[in-house]
Amino acid sequence: VSTEPSTWRIALAGAGHVGGGVLDILHDRGDALIAEHGVRLIVTGVAELGGGAIDPAGLDVAALRTALSAGRALGELPRVGILGLSPIEMLDRSDADILLEATPVDLTDGEPGLSTVRHALLTGRHAVLANKGPVALAYDELAALSRRPAPMLRFSATVAGALPVVTMGQRDMAGCRITRLEGVLNGTSHSILRAMERGDCFADAVLDAQRRGIAEADPSLDVDGHDAACKLAIAANAVLGMACTVKDVAVRGIRDLTADDVRAPLGSGQRLVLLCLAEADGNGYQLSVAPTPVPEEHPLARLHPDEMGVVFHTDRNTRISAASLEPGAEPASAAMLRDVLDIIRSTPCSPA
Amino acid sequence: VSTEPSTWRIALAGAGHVGGGVLDILHDRGDALIAEHGVRLIVTGVAELGGGAIDPAGLDVAALRTALSAGRALGELPRVGILGLSPIEMLDRSDADILLEATPVDLTDGEPGLSTVRHALLTGRHAVLANKGPVALAYDELAALSRRPAPMLRFSATVAGALPVVTMGQRDMAGCRITRLEGVLNGTSHSILRAMERGDCFADAVLDAQRRGIAEADPSLDVDGHDAACKLAIAANAVLGMACTVKDVAVRGIRDLTADDVRAPLGSGQRLVLLCLAEADGNGYQLSVAPTPVPEEHPLARLHPDEMGVVFHTDRNTRISAASLEPGAEPASAAMLRDVLDIIRSTPCSPA
Repeated sequence: VSTEPSTWRIALAGAGHVGGGVLDILHDRGDALIAEHGVRLIVTGVAELGGGAIDPAGLDVAALRTALSAGRALGELPRVGILGLSPIEMLDRSDADILLEATPVDLTDGEPGLSTVRHALLTGRHAVLANKGPVALAYDELAALSRRPAPMLRFSATVAGALPVVTMGQRDMAGCRITRLEGVLNGTSHSILRAMERGDCFADAVLDAQRRGIAEADPSLDVDGHDAACKLAIAANAVLGMACTVKDVAVRGIRDLTADDVRAPLGSGQRLVLLCLAEADGNGYQLSVAPTPVPEEHPLARLHPDEMGVVFHTDRNTRISAASLEPGAEPASAAMLRDVLDIIRSTPCSPA
Repeated sequence: VSTEPSTWRIALAGAGHVGGGVLDILHDRGDALIAEHGVRLIVTGVAELGGGAIDPAGLDVAALRTALSAGRALGELPRVGILGLSPIEMLDRSDADILLEATPVDLTDGEPGLSTVRHALLTGRHAVLANKGPVALAYDELAALSRRPAPMLRFSATVAGALPVVTMGQRDMAGCRITRLEGVLNGTSHSILRAMERGDCFADAVLDAQRRGIAEADPSLDVDGHDAACKLAIAANAVLGMACTVKDVAVRGIRDLTADDVRAPLGSGQRLVLLCLAEADGNGYQLSVAPTPVPEEHPLARLHPDEMGVVFHTDRNTRISAASLEPGAEPASAAMLRDVLDIIRSTPCSPA
């Protein structure tokens, strides 16, 4: 590409592991993105709990990373910091082209993410989500707000980070009828099940996952299957064309399992996984999340303890599967960036 | 979608297993494509060796399928058949929006596919290839002809059928640096190796693959690694941004292996696969195809005998893999259709 790179302004809501990881990639690969994609990404606003920073000419990403890794509030940064800056104010003052939403998941009302994403789309900005709350709770509304020629909405990171469930489902299965979608979409519970398979009891396996930074202090969302159910509901909307919410998913978690329960299927050449399943049923799909034995040769039986996976079965005699090894949050950050690049590629005219 | 479906005219060059399979899908799922994608696909021209058929208003797909399955020449079809019709003439007279190229692979000069694809792009038609010859031999030229706002070129079916090597590489790895791409991209040789692992000698395994319709009468392209090398070269161009041809791939096939050679790695917990490898090396990649042992826990060691697979390793701490079970040509036909739908989705204004 010999022409000038096009400049795109990014506003980042949420600067935790995933949002901070996006800054890391922009810092490390900014020049590469110009060379490989002809795109210069500048961060014109960041908001986290308690404040943020704004510079429509582009914030110093190295300075943001230094502050974040030192635990300093971005609102206190000299010149650019603003204490108490909300994500929506940040978005409005950042003059951004694309919102990146990576604030913590809330499955009650999806806030603050939902309001920020809605505001972005209504004011003509594209939105990329890692936070699954808004799409799990308000898929229809957000999809309607992003219908062409409106701004674009991307959320591939919300369904198992870098695992390409949504993108493969939309792009690579297009034209087929998906008869069955299977997934291991919650990394924490998968890792716990594999530890229990080695003999750990549930409580020890959870403790170990917490020590490794995989499980949260309160692991309920993961081990009770609700996180997996959200991801399945998002995939059902985005890939299977089924209007549904997490409430349409029959959910059973892994909390009550003993190590013996997990090991029992091994005797018949099977492995127990927390299976997310969408099974064609007349005109729609039955959605469920439940501990389920799968045969040894099944793609989801082959997963590494830190791996998530998805399998698409279609009417065209195909079984296409994917797996993603995700020991940390970095792949989810990379998934946000791929969505940004997809938006840029899908735009007829660049904004600058 | 409540609006009228947009109509797209398809010209099909090559009506063998893959091209014929496209007609099958259009026949079975035509109404579903209108409902799900708002797109009506009509076939306005077909060419095969010796002739073809034309109807700018849309050929009767059921009649085409009946003729093909009865072994009747399309050129002899009443009213629409034209004996001796060449692919280029067919394209010109079909008034098509999109060329589907699925004629047999030729790795010497890429013909007749290359000329047809070139003509399509030069005359403003999009092109979708299953035939890997043109992209393996003339990637640069065809990519230049399809640079925006020119017509689009898609060829996901050329690299291992429905396995999403190109599409995942371009869409899902965007923004990362791929440090290593590994693939089992030739189904025939993979199936032969798995049979040899069970004790068959090479000759028997080939015979069995021929009986099952997997291997061709002359299996050289598959077992000597050249088909795999072509796929790797296409992926290197399309995904790794490396200008190269099949000549840049160091190739070793499986013809000289004994059953003992194939079984030997099992002793150390490894499996022998015909590995396509692109390994980062300074600014570029080293490309090779060779029988290679991979550890049991490697995604490519887990493949079913009828499965192909790909693994992307990136600088972002990710290992993303995919596998596709392809017992026949149907998945490759489905891959052509997904590319057609991707072109339609990527077009700002529909043609009709």
